Amino acid sequence: MDVATWAVEMLATARVARLATADRAGQPLVVPVCYAFVDGRIYSAVDAKPKRTRELRRLRDIADNPRVSLVVDVWDEDWARLAWVLVEGTAGILTTDLERTPALAALVAKYPQYAAMDLLSTAGPVIAITPARVVAWRAAG
Amino acid sequence: MDVATWAVEMLATARVARLATADRAGQPLVVPVCYAFVDGRIYSAVDAKPKRTRELRRLRDIADNPRVSLVVDVWDEDWARLAWVLVEGTAGILTTDLERTPALAALVAKYPQYAAMDLLSTAGPVIAITPARVVAWRAAG
Repeated sequence: MDVATWAVEMLATARVARLATADRAGQPLVVPVCYAFVDGRIYSAVDAKPKRTRELRRLRDIADNPRVSLVVDVWDEDWARLAWVLVEGTAGILTTDLERTPALAALVAKYPQYAAMDLLSTAGPVIAITPARVVAWRAAG
Repeated sequence: MDVATWAVEMLATARVARLATADRAGQPLVVPVCYAFVDGRIYSAVDAKPKRTRELRRLRDIADNPRVSLVVDVWDEDWARLAWVLVEGTAGILTTDLERTPALAALVAKYPQYAAMDLLSTAGPVIAITPARVVAWRAAG
């Protein structure tokens, strides 16, 4: 995939992304997520931040329909600074420790908050996104 | 709908939202959007910010499948300050000036940037979202 350097850098460093899934009936869902971008894949964990349940809709959606979209963007009141990177791809849930452990380690390395909450022991399912298409845009051109 | 006051306030004042649509095949799309929340509905315009085309995918998606999801959230490195408001609903395109004009006026009132680019004369299609369900969460409880 031919992706601009600034866009790869933004994917690697942005602190929050928004993940969109859709259920079988085509109802989209969008949620803010912490994530790590490692070796071309995007990982996001169901962490111990308070939630109603770990049986999250995003997981049901992915089980029913693996197509997802994720965006990282820069908001600024100066619209000449706006930028976004949009990833479309396929999501799956990592089931083996062989896959989970390095993904969780990348999340802990990126977010000191995860180290503090001992993500490695407390994480629920880990979502892995394989990008099929990346579109990047910035006002600055 | 029973929505917490802080969540309504956040919907009214947040500067950027992320809008998820899905096409007929269930492929989600998520994009950052400027929006105005007026009388219980959410409006977003295809504005004159540079884009490849105004025949945007979000518009095709909505024509094919009116179900959308929109989130406004607060990101903070202190995760005790995280919050989000998620809206699920039905989107349509406003076609008459009777509907477009007040929606565009609300966008111009919220964003001085739109006044500067003369949104009223330059806007393309205006998306209107009617919420069916609002879910709000914040770490602070």
